[in-house]
Amino acid sequence: MRFSKIIEEVLDEVLPKGNDRPAILSQAMRYAVGTGGKRVRPRICLAAALGAGGDIEDARYPAAAIELLHNYTLVHDDLPAMDNDEERRGMMSVWKKFGEANAILAGDALLALAYKTAALSPRNVKRIIEELGEKGVGVVQGQVEDIEEIKRDIDFIYLHKTADLFIASAAMGALAVGADEELVGKLKEYALNLGLAFQYQDDLLDGDSPYDLEKTRSLAEESTNKAIDALQGLPGDLSELIRLAESLRGRQR
Amino acid sequence: MRFSKIIEEVLDEVLPKGNDRPAILSQAMRYAVGTGGKRVRPRICLAAALGAGGDIEDARYPAAAIELLHNYTLVHDDLPAMDNDEERRGMMSVWKKFGEANAILAGDALLALAYKTAALSPRNVKRIIEELGEKGVGVVQGQVEDIEEIKRDIDFIYLHKTADLFIASAAMGALAVGADEELVGKLKEYALNLGLAFQYQDDLLDGDSPYDLEKTRSLAEESTNKAIDALQGLPGDLSELIRLAESLRGRQR
Repeated sequence: MRFSKIIEEVLDEVLPKGNDRPAILSQAMRYAVGTGGKRVRPRICLAAALGAGGDIEDARYPAAAIELLHNYTLVHDDLPAMDNDEERRGMMSVWKKFGEANAILAGDALLALAYKTAALSPRNVKRIIEELGEKGVGVVQGQVEDIEEIKRDIDFIYLHKTADLFIASAAMGALAVGADEELVGKLKEYALNLGLAFQYQDDLLDGDSPYDLEKTRSLAEESTNKAIDALQGLPGDLSELIRLAESLRGRQR
Repeated sequence: MRFSKIIEEVLDEVLPKGNDRPAILSQAMRYAVGTGGKRVRPRICLAAALGAGGDIEDARYPAAAIELLHNYTLVHDDLPAMDNDEERRGMMSVWKKFGEANAILAGDALLALAYKTAALSPRNVKRIIEELGEKGVGVVQGQVEDIEEIKRDIDFIYLHKTADLFIASAAMGALAVGADEELVGKLKEYALNLGLAFQYQDDLLDGDSPYDLEKTRSLAEESTNKAIDALQGLPGDLSELIRLAESLRGRQR
């Protein structure tokens, strides 16, 4: 499928080669990003470019950027001082395989590389970095709120920890193809609701929603519908944006 | 002094307020950046703007960005899995005061905020993010080489761990005032040599140079002279760039 091919190719292009000095860092960065997987966020980015009426090739670097940034959050979340996860996707987590110091540093390098990569967009770099910068801070705010605050604000956590990177994905995809701010706004609204739906579905799969089963299902359904409604008036091909939203309805691991 | 005022003001402006949610993150970020200090890198950025013939106010956001990025490296370097330092600048290190997870996350947020802040430059944002992105990866490569590799390459470490952020500072300051690539190149050459001189002086102060005393002194002197030589042909006020280089000659803690 065309999306997968672009995403895997551009990630391979921007990541350091496995023997680039220092080799252990290059290897840890590649290991963290892996190959394949669902790649939900870069798909949103490319789909937003299409939905805005643009050429998805123009959004390839922002798509890689958001996946690099997402993977840095996973590498740091797995650390012993955080979730202390020894496994991820059925394989050793980065710190378990490369050591704690290298995992911290590989995450740092992925984050810096995300911004460098986003700046390769053919247009609107200033706006793209604004979005990725704001949401890059936001995702950390969501994580700290989740692990630290005694009176946790669930809406704050879902918005920042989950939806922020979805919003940045859509905004960057639209900006990379030259969409105006009205279109960017519609796609951000879509992505916000898609992110919330994704999180509610995650809660259902994990069986740890803060709400009862019925309420969580209804929140997920409502957010999915809002996401699709937000697409009205977009000039481009909406099929992939709609498919992404619909695919969440019956999502499984 | 005018430089200090701009630097402290812009850092205060871009950092989250102490009660911004989640408060512990905002407080940890502010604590990490502190107030005062030498602020060498933002000074280089502002001085480069002047040297390129521009208005230093135009370089204020890139100056804040490089200081945010520098401070994230310190927060992560101090972590138990890295240098395990409980103190920094005579105060508790961030992880000692706020806990390990919050220190990892505060560092992450400072790094993302650095890119968001650099994008506030009034011009040349694409080039600025390219430089800050490349050097943001470079500084991690230097750190991994330093702690990990068995056959450490000293030149690689000094270039990336120390000089890279000096180079980004100068490049961003010049780009923010609209300097052409020839001027940017001269200022990067200045900053590379300033960074090396800074590192050799550091070795002398710490008494842990990989070379003997005489050789280290001569390398420091040579690099300082090369830095000043690189400034020939710049159109602006060079006094601050020269003062920064000269101040390294007799540097003390």
